[in-house]
Amino acid sequence: MAEKNKLSIVVFSGELDRALCAFMLAITSASMAMEVSLFFTFWGLNIIKKSHGKTKSKGILKKMLNIFNRGGSERLKLSKFNMMGLGTLMIKRMMKDISMPSIDELITMAKESGVKFIACTTSMELMGMDKESFREDIVDEVAGAAYFLNEASKGKITLFI
Amino acid sequence: MAEKNKLSIVVFSGELDRALCAFMLAITSASMAMEVSLFFTFWGLNIIKKSHGKTKSKGILKKMLNIFNRGGSERLKLSKFNMMGLGTLMIKRMMKDISMPSIDELITMAKESGVKFIACTTSMELMGMDKESFREDIVDEVAGAAYFLNEASKGKITLFI
Amino acid sequence: MAEKNKLSIVVFSGELDRALCAFMLAITSASMAMEVSLFFTFWGLNIIKKSHGKTKSKGILKKMLNIFNRGGSERLKLSKFNMMGLGTLMIKRMMKDISMPSIDELITMAKESGVKFIACTTSMELMGMDKESFREDIVDEVAGAAYFLNEASKGKITLFI
Repeated sequence: MAEKNKLSIVVFSGELDRALCAFMLAITSASMAMEVSLFFTFWGLNIIKKSHGKTKSKGILKKMLNIFNRGGSERLKLSKFNMMGLGTLMIKRMMKDISMPSIDELITMAKESGVKFIACTTSMELMGMDKESFREDIVDEVAGAAYFLNEASKGKITLFI
Repeated sequence: MAEKNKLSIVVFSGELDRALCAFMLAITSASMAMEVSLFFTFWGLNIIKKSHGKTKSKGILKKMLNIFNRGGSERLKLSKFNMMGLGTLMIKRMMKDISMPSIDELITMAKESGVKFIACTTSMELMGMDKESFREDIVDEVAGAAYFLNEASKGKITLFI
Repeated sequence: MAEKNKLSIVVFSGELDRALCAFMLAITSASMAMEVSLFFTFWGLNIIKKSHGKTKSKGILKKMLNIFNRGGSERLKLSKFNMMGLGTLMIKRMMKDISMPSIDELITMAKESGVKFIACTTSMELMGMDKESFREDIVDEVAGAAYFLNEASKGKITLFI
C-alpha cells in the first residue's frame, strides 16, 4: 500500500490553544494538497458542539456533565493562564489584533478546504451525545477507533493533540 | 526496511481520560492485526503501578513523591473536571452505564491481545521505581528511549499521549 | 520520495516534564543517526526564551502576557504536582540525584548533536515575540506550519508534545 501525503489528527483536547494548533496544521496541510482527517474524541467533541440549544441527553449524570461541559467553539478555554476566563479573553483579543481567525472561522476554513471531520462514537455514547449535538453539517462521519486507525495508516503524519 | 502496520504510543500521561484513549487505540489496533507497543513514561507509569503494597524507594524525596503520586489504575483522575474526585467518579459510573471496560479490564484485554508493555528506565530511575513497583507480569520490557524509537521507526503510526 | 529515518516534534507544551521527554527523545534520536527537527510553538516557545532581559513587546496585552508567562528554561514547571513550585523543585533535585542533565544542558546537548530548532512564526506574532526573545543562536529557523509539515512528511516519526 503506497503512503499518501496525508495528515490524521486525534483531537482529544477541548482547549482553545490546542484546538488552534490542530486547525492551523489541518488547514495548512489541506492548502499543501494533503488529505486531512480530524478525529474528534472526548473533550475535543466540545469544539464541534452546538453553542446553543438544549441537550437531550438522558440520565442525571449525563445531564450534569453537559452543564459543566457545555462546549461550543466560543466556550473553549486556554490550557494555561485561563485565570477565570481573563487569560482566555486576552488571547482572543490578541488573536484579533493580528487578524488571526477565530476557532469558528477556522472550522469554516477547514470545512471549505476539504478537511474531513469524524466524531468518535465511543466518546459520544459515553457523554450522551448524538449527531444532533454537533453544529449542522459539521460532521462527515460518525465512527470508532478502527475507522481512524485505518485512515491514519494510509498516511504519513499522525498526531494526538 | 519495509514498514509494518504497527502502532507505537508514548504513554506519558497518567490521567484516566488519556489512558482510556491510549488503550482503546491499542486494543483496536491489535484487533486489526497491527503490532502495538506502549511505552510507559513519567506519569504514565502510574497506570501500570501496583495499587497496593509498600514502595521500597530510598531517599526522602522519592518517598514523598510516592505518597503524592501513589499510582495504580484505580487512582487515575480526569485531566479536566476532576472536582476533588467527583467528576472522575461520575465518568467511571458513566463508563459502567454503557458497559465500557475499566482501565483494569482494558489492561487485561490489551495484554491478552498481544500489546507489548514497555516501561521507561529513565523515568523509573528518576521516580525511584523498579520492576517490583508494577503489577505482576505486566511489563514485557524495561528499556530506554532508544528501544522505543527503534520500535516506532519500524511502524506506521506513532503517538504521544 | 524515500522516507528518511527522521523524527519531527511539535513542542507545544512549556512544562518541565513534557520538555524533558521531548529533549530525551530528540537527543537519543540524534545519537541513533536520525535527523531531528523540533518545532517550538505556543507555550513551547518558553523553553527557548531568554531568562533575563526585558521584553520589547508593544501593547498592554502582550506586555501583560509576558509578565505572567516569562519563560526561560529555568522557569518551566511540572504539569502535575507543581504545588506552588515545591513539586517542581523536588523533581529538579531528583534529576540531580541521578545525574540527569537539566533542561539547559539538554538544550546544549541537542544543539551539539545537530537537532534543528524551529520557532513558529504565528505563535511568535501572537505573543509579541521576535528572534531577540530567544536565547542567542538557539533558533535555526523561524517558520510557519507549512515548513514543519514539509519536514515531517519527509520522516518516519512525528509527535505532538
